[in-house]
Amino acid sequence: MEYTKITEDLLSQIKAAVGPANVFTDKESLDNYSHDETEDLRYYPEVVVKPTDPEGIAALLKICNQHHIPVTPRGGGTGLSGAALPIYGGVLLSMEKFKDIIDIDTENLQATVEPGVITEAFINAVGEKGLLYPVDPSSKGSCFIGGNVAHGSGGPRVVKYGTIREYILNLEVVLPTGEIIWTGANTLKYASGYNLTQMMIGSEGTLAVVTKIVTKLIPKSSHSVLMLGSFPENEKACAAVSAIFRAGITPSALEFMERKGVEWVIKFDDIKFDLKDDANAFLLIEFDGDDLDTIFKDCEKVNMVLEEFDCSDVLFADSAQQKEDLWRMRRTMAESVKSNSVYKEEDTVVPRAALPKLINGIKEIGSRYGFESVCYGHAGDGNLHINIIKAGMSDEDWKNKLKAGITEVFELTTALGGTISGEHGIGLVQKEFMPVKYSEIHLDLMRGIKKVFDPNGILNPGKIF
Amino acid sequence: MEYTKITEDLLSQIKAAVGPANVFTDKESLDNYSHDETEDLRYYPEVVVKPTDPEGIAALLKICNQHHIPVTPRGGGTGLSGAALPIYGGVLLSMEKFKDIIDIDTENLQATVEPGVITEAFINAVGEKGLLYPVDPSSKGSCFIGGNVAHGSGGPRVVKYGTIREYILNLEVVLPTGEIIWTGANTLKYASGYNLTQMMIGSEGTLAVVTKIVTKLIPKSSHSVLMLGSFPENEKACAAVSAIFRAGITPSALEFMERKGVEWVIKFDDIKFDLKDDANAFLLIEFDGDDLDTIFKDCEKVNMVLEEFDCSDVLFADSAQQKEDLWRMRRTMAESVKSNSVYKEEDTVVPRAALPKLINGIKEIGSRYGFESVCYGHAGDGNLHINIIKAGMSDEDWKNKLKAGITEVFELTTALGGTISGEHGIGLVQKEFMPVKYSEIHLDLMRGIKKVFDPNGILNPGKIF
Repeated sequence: MEYTKITEDLLSQIKAAVGPANVFTDKESLDNYSHDETEDLRYYPEVVVKPTDPEGIAALLKICNQHHIPVTPRGGGTGLSGAALPIYGGVLLSMEKFKDIIDIDTENLQATVEPGVITEAFINAVGEKGLLYPVDPSSKGSCFIGGNVAHGSGGPRVVKYGTIREYILNLEVVLPTGEIIWTGANTLKYASGYNLTQMMIGSEGTLAVVTKIVTKLIPKSSHSVLMLGSFPENEKACAAVSAIFRAGITPSALEFMERKGVEWVIKFDDIKFDLKDDANAFLLIEFDGDDLDTIFKDCEKVNMVLEEFDCSDVLFADSAQQKEDLWRMRRTMAESVKSNSVYKEEDTVVPRAALPKLINGIKEIGSRYGFESVCYGHAGDGNLHINIIKAGMSDEDWKNKLKAGITEVFELTTALGGTISGEHGIGLVQKEFMPVKYSEIHLDLMRGIKKVFDPNGILNPGKIF
Repeated sequence: MEYTKITEDLLSQIKAAVGPANVFTDKESLDNYSHDETEDLRYYPEVVVKPTDPEGIAALLKICNQHHIPVTPRGGGTGLSGAALPIYGGVLLSMEKFKDIIDIDTENLQATVEPGVITEAFINAVGEKGLLYPVDPSSKGSCFIGGNVAHGSGGPRVVKYGTIREYILNLEVVLPTGEIIWTGANTLKYASGYNLTQMMIGSEGTLAVVTKIVTKLIPKSSHSVLMLGSFPENEKACAAVSAIFRAGITPSALEFMERKGVEWVIKFDDIKFDLKDDANAFLLIEFDGDDLDTIFKDCEKVNMVLEEFDCSDVLFADSAQQKEDLWRMRRTMAESVKSNSVYKEEDTVVPRAALPKLINGIKEIGSRYGFESVCYGHAGDGNLHINIIKAGMSDEDWKNKLKAGITEVFELTTALGGTISGEHGIGLVQKEFMPVKYSEIHLDLMRGIKKVFDPNGILNPGKIF
């Protein structure tokens, strides 16, 4: 792809568009925005721009569209698929100055928020008003809500509350051609032509730049109970997952962790956890609600299910600290694994009853290709994150053979009715696996949609397809 | 728009594509498929085709795409926006032979179903397995699940369970160019490129023909309680709606009905109902769950809220018959009104706290234009159906001035943060109001998406925009 390099003259135009104080070309800035959380990848932008309002972004995009300069939007930089990497240089568009919670509307249980608000800050702000915004990815302490929209984010509570897709009512966006539109309406229902709001969600900043977000909110539950079940093997824990739902139980979170993942966390973090010899797999199960009796009844029911799958031990977290520790164990797992080894993360998702086949398949593929793996994730949704670890694999094999191994993993997820990403997105690093899941016809439809929104291909080029 | 008329030769090709027994050109067939439930509109197809498999549809669409013949897909024919009317003649594609429930997967709580299955039949089939598919529009006894997908349907339980958008996981579709693809994966999460499944939902058969539907299912509650609150005036009843949610209560249905609507039902149907003099507006409120105590607690809480809004009477439906009667009263309201007068139905939706402003505005606009209106609908979602009744309006004014009145209604919904259809869709009859809500830029994006899927514009032409 051919793009225009940013000359001094173009830089002056960009400064005039967004204000000179919001344009950065110093080495440190270019360095800071050259990477996200995806492996060790680095791509340097030519300029970092931090606009303060939609009009500034509109003016910026008009210049870039006219001169064919690539623009890569960026949220909190916590992405795991490389969607925020400026692989063709050009403008890195940081949304960090869009950090206002504009309105928490307690009459309608809605909020209007800017995309640069940190997800956890938003959750806490609505929580203070007794309301819940249940989309909380593991990176909630640093990711932006705009990035969550771009990736169709999930998190542990999807299993009860649904993904971000069910909470985004309306978006203000700037089109690559510089127009500003609202994609929908601030309503719970919408049957008024093609749903551009849903089209934006998960489009990874390739169609438009989100500048305002209207979310649905729900009442916050007053109680929650967290329990951790230990199992002799992965397969048993994974098989218990669909059995729980078949029993008519809907937890507010249902996470799977392999023993190896827990071991890495214990090494990395200072969490106190008594890891027993026969505990090879874990299910972290949370219930929430307003009535403790109902919650305890659910806990009893789930206990009976777990027993059927040889659960050897159930730990109830009975203090806020213990709950926080268990959740931290789950949330820091990726970081812990990453700290110890060269690794690659995949984000498989299948119908939940297929989890035992998925995890067995992953291990079998790993044994053939010589990589180790640590699996964990949102088992209640059939969503398993796989940390592939280089381990004994040679540099040569890691470089040349891993792709074939990952292709096999995705062929397996696809054969099981699943897909190649549940919540991390495609971005840069999963792009090469898209043909495993999609026909050329299907990909052409996506490319066609891209061209409708972004005829000159300036917005986050080189991502998804 | 210029389309090719179906010659004898083309008819032979169509017969060869789908089988001669599935092609109808007799007067009765053309007549039967010339209308849906939209006002008294009639448009005659040149041929009615009832294919039996996706391959037949693919072959049919290839012929029509090559020769530029319009194809209008049709479900149960219960639509209220005229989306299934073959306004350019051509092929009326009835999906009525796609009537298999292919699989109810109790392991994964999913089902695979053909689009011609009647919604209520599907609800009953999964219900027998203890599962719930909560999307039940008022026409559930005759509408098809495929039509529900095409319109992004809702129904009374959206307020707790969400619209059909949250239950459709994956779709097999035939593109206008004749290719068959699956739009997504059978998973609860999906972040693998643009979400074509969501793109299809609510696209009213203008992008592709749906041939298989994979739905999410949830556990069915064992208990429900239905109550009817009476209010002295519309505004009070409407104001109570958002107060209920603010109190942290989430009913499984929350419907509004005007007194006039109830009067028309009593005239039309044989429902026994003691309509008191001071009851001018009603809220029909349902709770469901597995625990009756919890449900009763919610009923008590809601009672306290209703009192604040001068609710004069609360009726608890204590038998299955009484529940059924109250629901029938709500469900037959459109039909009852229609049986008595020339009318037009609009499907407004706003943030729910704006309901009092919406209903007062509708009445005020009506008084200026001389039309009466009966309002009812899914108040919990801010979704109000308006039956506009000709009443004393002259034929001349009904023909010439009504459009301006409806435009004012939609300007009001838009100003209140809402839109011009919550669940009935745009189809033919709301098309002229799209510019009230959307800019030309926005409409051009929709037209661009249409062109990506259907370059020759053969699929359901003349609808939405």
